[in-house]
Amino acid sequence: MSAPSNLLAPTKVGIALGDRSYDVVIGAGLLDAAATWSDLPKSAQALVVTNEVVAPLYADVLQRQLSALHNRVDVLVLPDGEAHKDWQTMNLVFDRLLANGADRKSVLYALGGGVVGDMTGFAAACYMRGVPFVQVPTTLLSQVDSSVGGKTAVNHPLGKNMIGAFYQPVRVICDMDTLRTLPAREVSAGLAEVIKYGPIADASFLAWLEEHMEGLVALEPALIAHAVQRSCEIKAAVVGADEREGGLRAILNFGHTFGHAIEAGLGFGTWLHGEAVAAGMVMAADLSERCGLMPAGFADRLRALISRAGLPVVAPALSAEEYLEHMRVDKKSQGGEIRFVLIDKLGSAVMRPAPEALVRQTLAACCQPA
Amino acid sequence: MSAPSNLLAPTKVGIALGDRSYDVVIGAGLLDAAATWSDLPKSAQALVVTNEVVAPLYADVLQRQLSALHNRVDVLVLPDGEAHKDWQTMNLVFDRLLANGADRKSVLYALGGGVVGDMTGFAAACYMRGVPFVQVPTTLLSQVDSSVGGKTAVNHPLGKNMIGAFYQPVRVICDMDTLRTLPAREVSAGLAEVIKYGPIADASFLAWLEEHMEGLVALEPALIAHAVQRSCEIKAAVVGADEREGGLRAILNFGHTFGHAIEAGLGFGTWLHGEAVAAGMVMAADLSERCGLMPAGFADRLRALISRAGLPVVAPALSAEEYLEHMRVDKKSQGGEIRFVLIDKLGSAVMRPAPEALVRQTLAACCQPA
Repeated sequence: MSAPSNLLAPTKVGIALGDRSYDVVIGAGLLDAAATWSDLPKSAQALVVTNEVVAPLYADVLQRQLSALHNRVDVLVLPDGEAHKDWQTMNLVFDRLLANGADRKSVLYALGGGVVGDMTGFAAACYMRGVPFVQVPTTLLSQVDSSVGGKTAVNHPLGKNMIGAFYQPVRVICDMDTLRTLPAREVSAGLAEVIKYGPIADASFLAWLEEHMEGLVALEPALIAHAVQRSCEIKAAVVGADEREGGLRAILNFGHTFGHAIEAGLGFGTWLHGEAVAAGMVMAADLSERCGLMPAGFADRLRALISRAGLPVVAPALSAEEYLEHMRVDKKSQGGEIRFVLIDKLGSAVMRPAPEALVRQTLAACCQPA
Repeated sequence: MSAPSNLLAPTKVGIALGDRSYDVVIGAGLLDAAATWSDLPKSAQALVVTNEVVAPLYADVLQRQLSALHNRVDVLVLPDGEAHKDWQTMNLVFDRLLANGADRKSVLYALGGGVVGDMTGFAAACYMRGVPFVQVPTTLLSQVDSSVGGKTAVNHPLGKNMIGAFYQPVRVICDMDTLRTLPAREVSAGLAEVIKYGPIADASFLAWLEEHMEGLVALEPALIAHAVQRSCEIKAAVVGADEREGGLRAILNFGHTFGHAIEAGLGFGTWLHGEAVAAGMVMAADLSERCGLMPAGFADRLRALISRAGLPVVAPALSAEEYLEHMRVDKKSQGGEIRFVLIDKLGSAVMRPAPEALVRQTLAACCQPA
């Protein structure tokens, strides 16, 4: 299970959305392989949007490869981090595109993690009412979750991802080699979203994760490639059935209602998104038990796995009122009622409100004492 | 032809776009008729977005009628005018929605002209990645053009409508009575977009307009209702065939390439959009002649009709370089080449580049001397 990554043949996971269908390509050495880019849309101009951490690592190779598709490939380097996932930063993309005279055929490439992908995708959705874009996720979290499925957004001071669009990329390119430069903390944050897919959709994947968690933390190539592929397959099935989150798609937000409250309560960027989701999944599992949907022991099982991934399992000490207030502005809320993604059996999730008394019990049980 | 407007039965023009289809309802006394609103989506919250000019006239009646559909109907009054069609002003919509705890089922109502409609529609497209919205256009220009077809946008300092989305309303409600409060200058501006539909799509409509222009300027109810209906029918046919402006839809921009350059060159809001389009149509007609697509006399014929509508037929004295620069950032440009909507026979338009020498001749012939 520790073969050199260049021996892994690329695999494709198809996202079936009619005339908006596309492939997630998963493999090693993809960024610098001409075949990765050869059949993407050609145009006069392209803009690679990336951040100050990723740019020195991969912007050059991308720019070189894309010169076969575009007469001009410009690179825009944004500041790094969730704190900059706002309209003001996204506007730098518009400023550059307009300064370059980019037209409607221009292609945007999102090179980086979830923040870069969400902002670049939203910018592509809005620039001249829509230009093509390609996701090149370089973090585990964005490879297994945010780059797939067309959710794009920026944050608003009053809520995370409140302003955005459903807008699909023309391709997602997940190069396993880019994960080697990830700090361990970000590998763990990505594993939170990987773990998510077990309880909501695939009990045997959950068991597989329990078997291989230490190898995944160590980024063993074959293991991590399988985890990315299985995550994208599950996400593809969910998104293919419910692109605009009319119902089913919301199960992908397991752990996210509590998680978003953690991020908002601490200030975006204090905890990584994956870390907040990790603690949030423990809380959602705990609430699933308290609602009588899952037997005792489920939350402990999940807590143990999450902990082995190097992730926090205890939520920060915000007041119950603060948690509740942040959760009420969650996009799944309806008429002021908070709705949670809960597990009703291993590999199956439901979205429903929960009695406030039980939510308060969960907060008391899962948060650090004040 | 001067029957009281309340004798006109409402008519519907259907916009056929699959699961995004909707009706444009055209009639008198619609705002204060319960039947107008009865089968629209219900929800806990609604937000009427309007401006400081329209709010005192119609916000109360709308709020009263909508109370049957929503528990809470809030009204947001924006500053008036194209100069405020920017992200900063649109952000006031998000601020209010989030402050109110508006959820994904909340409905936005755009009550006003094109600026209110474009911003409210774009806000609806982006808020939580999309909430339903209803267009209630109160100007002739927005009734015959901007409220129909799902183009939403805000301006960028470097270009008009550069940031936006294709996002369809759930209904468009055109109440002829709201036109009675329009200043004459805005009636004329609306007639510019009405006139547009003749040369691009319907030679007999052009002849009808020539027969009735003075009655239209005077807002004779039966005449103006017919003009709105025919305009919406033509727009419906074009948009139904090409929602996202892959090709055909661009013909609706007849006069707009020059017109946008006028608006940008003078500063947005100096000339009304319809005024700029009026002078722009004269220029596009002149260029159609110079390109050998139309016989001599066509531009004169259009100039005469536009003048009778109370609209400018001579473009302002910007330099040719300024015109060309602004036109190069037009959304129809590709690879730096300006593309114009030209008339190739009465009732038929084509989009194509034009030799720069001929464009310069048109600029010299149609602009005021410096």
